[in-house]
Amino acid sequence: MKHPSLAPVIAALPPTVPFVGPEVIERRTGIPFRARLGANESAFGPSPKVIAAIAAAAGDVWTYGDSEIFAVRSALSDDLGTPLETLSVGEGIDALLGLTCRLFLAQNDRVVTSLGAYPTFNYHVAAQGAELSTVPYEDDRESLSGLLEATRAAPTKIVYLANPDNPMGTWWPAEEIEHFIDAVPPETLIVLDEAYGETAPAGTLPAIDVARPNLLRFRTFSKAYGLAGMRIGYCIGPADLIAAFDRIRNHFGVNKLAQIAALAALDDQDYLDRTVQAIAAGRDRIAERARQLELAPIASATNFVAIDCGSASRAGAILERLLARGIFVRKPAVPVLDRCIRLSVGRPADIELACDTLESILAE
Amino acid sequence: MKHPSLAPVIAALPPTVPFVGPEVIERRTGIPFRARLGANESAFGPSPKVIAAIAAAAGDVWTYGDSEIFAVRSALSDDLGTPLETLSVGEGIDALLGLTCRLFLAQNDRVVTSLGAYPTFNYHVAAQGAELSTVPYEDDRESLSGLLEATRAAPTKIVYLANPDNPMGTWWPAEEIEHFIDAVPPETLIVLDEAYGETAPAGTLPAIDVARPNLLRFRTFSKAYGLAGMRIGYCIGPADLIAAFDRIRNHFGVNKLAQIAALAALDDQDYLDRTVQAIAAGRDRIAERARQLELAPIASATNFVAIDCGSASRAGAILERLLARGIFVRKPAVPVLDRCIRLSVGRPADIELACDTLESILAE
Repeated sequence: MKHPSLAPVIAALPPTVPFVGPEVIERRTGIPFRARLGANESAFGPSPKVIAAIAAAAGDVWTYGDSEIFAVRSALSDDLGTPLETLSVGEGIDALLGLTCRLFLAQNDRVVTSLGAYPTFNYHVAAQGAELSTVPYEDDRESLSGLLEATRAAPTKIVYLANPDNPMGTWWPAEEIEHFIDAVPPETLIVLDEAYGETAPAGTLPAIDVARPNLLRFRTFSKAYGLAGMRIGYCIGPADLIAAFDRIRNHFGVNKLAQIAALAALDDQDYLDRTVQAIAAGRDRIAERARQLELAPIASATNFVAIDCGSASRAGAILERLLARGIFVRKPAVPVLDRCIRLSVGRPADIELACDTLESILAE
Repeated sequence: MKHPSLAPVIAALPPTVPFVGPEVIERRTGIPFRARLGANESAFGPSPKVIAAIAAAAGDVWTYGDSEIFAVRSALSDDLGTPLETLSVGEGIDALLGLTCRLFLAQNDRVVTSLGAYPTFNYHVAAQGAELSTVPYEDDRESLSGLLEATRAAPTKIVYLANPDNPMGTWWPAEEIEHFIDAVPPETLIVLDEAYGETAPAGTLPAIDVARPNLLRFRTFSKAYGLAGMRIGYCIGPADLIAAFDRIRNHFGVNKLAQIAALAALDDQDYLDRTVQAIAAGRDRIAERARQLELAPIASATNFVAIDCGSASRAGAILERLLARGIFVRKPAVPVLDRCIRLSVGRPADIELACDTLESILAE
């Protein structure tokens, strides 16, 4: 059967997906997950006020959401002290990263990221036919000096950095990030992914500075705010870069209930604070149990903990057994990092179940 | 301030948006709309069962939605009698059209559509740097012969056709569409937009035939199902074209509540039937009132009615006055079609309010 041909850039793409979803794994194995700790979702859920707001608006979904996402952008503008026109709201960071790649990347453009950093960003880079240059992690952190060196080594369109980092959970203090930003050549766009910013210690996120002409920062309601399924995140940057999103984004793409939920979430900072505390307590508990099992938890500023299992083969074997016993976790895919498994911080019962299962696997 | 440069294709794009949203108009004018009849939403709303399903799941939104949208695709597969792998679900037809353009269009590729047809499709075509060739409507219908002639006149990557059509509401019977499909060269992808398929008379939609290698059909939960704000639609086509979406789509992009809502909507066909009847009655009522005002309603298979006001300038003046009096309607933008205003079928009270206002405007 002869089909209309795909665009050359697309025809060259492999049929990979960045992540295999937990429901997909369940359908493949027939084993339902008893604990869902693999996607860095917030098992603490959204604020009860958010849940109430969604339920109250359920009958209103016959209208498209506001194409300017004005209420959410206004609230963010107030909270962050940055003008409305420096904020773009999209269908989660994934969608915003995709738009960013489409805005800036032409075929064969060079992009720098860390080897083992966020696969979905790489997926969007590949879709543009751009070329990834990767820099190894250093002591389980994204290497600021390495990223900088790679960025300077050849004309680079985008450099990607997550702070805090996924999949390791490590982070740099704000002043180190600021030095990095200062040092990146102005023709290179810095994509600073702060998906886990809310759970990081004070002093991790640089102050907002939208005068910086080559910096876009990405944040989300999917993690600490507990709204992963709603698909809403935002980008902060200089007004003219932010305006560029309007050239290609789906103007009516942000779900109406997502807008309502995000607004209610921003309005309940007490709940966010309590969630962040619960996540910190959960991190400590995971680390404690890992150490009891003679594994080495890596200090984390996120809602997950990477646990060093000593070797890639051991980590892989542990992961496989956890999945087989209904515990959804993931592990980093690339060498050195792949000696770890990664547990999202669930509710206390989820953590105990996962760690009990881990304990019995290690005892075998 | 020097910025990292946009990709050449993007830098060449005008800063237009396909539609100005009603909330945007309200913020500009300061006049809140009393009737919302401009975006072809369904003011009848979704099924009460859908509303209940959304409310019941409001607390579950901390997890990402299923990346394979398996439940919805399974239900569609059963309902339509077509295999799972011939269905892709996305964030509304807008998102799916965007992906389709990205999959198939390289710079300078040729695309054929009708002059005045769906602007959001054109927007996505422009974002690829492809070139639109437009064919005038004929007697207020998309011209099948004209589209075919244009498609054959030069190598054409995509031909777009909506049946029923927006913004005129007109339609072709299935057999005419089938003849068109048969006649399009196999190297040209046919994008058949059936957003308004549910409200069309029996015999409008061709039977599903996924053996057709160059046909993608697009349907949505935004119109008759009353879920515009949820952003969920689907594409039906041959398995290998459908698989191509997986190379670039946002795998976790479809909102979890949208998946739940769509499934509940499919499960309440009685409600859909009643809504479709109410829409038909509303179309008749709008047409009746238009005729009473000595305007010429155009027969419609959709959830809106285009009303011929005699000239573009008169239609424009009427539109402006309706907006100023809090009635949100739109009008086609291109010559010949632009002699019309377009009223979505609202609830009876919305229709009477809009038509009363129209009457008083005409009396002035």
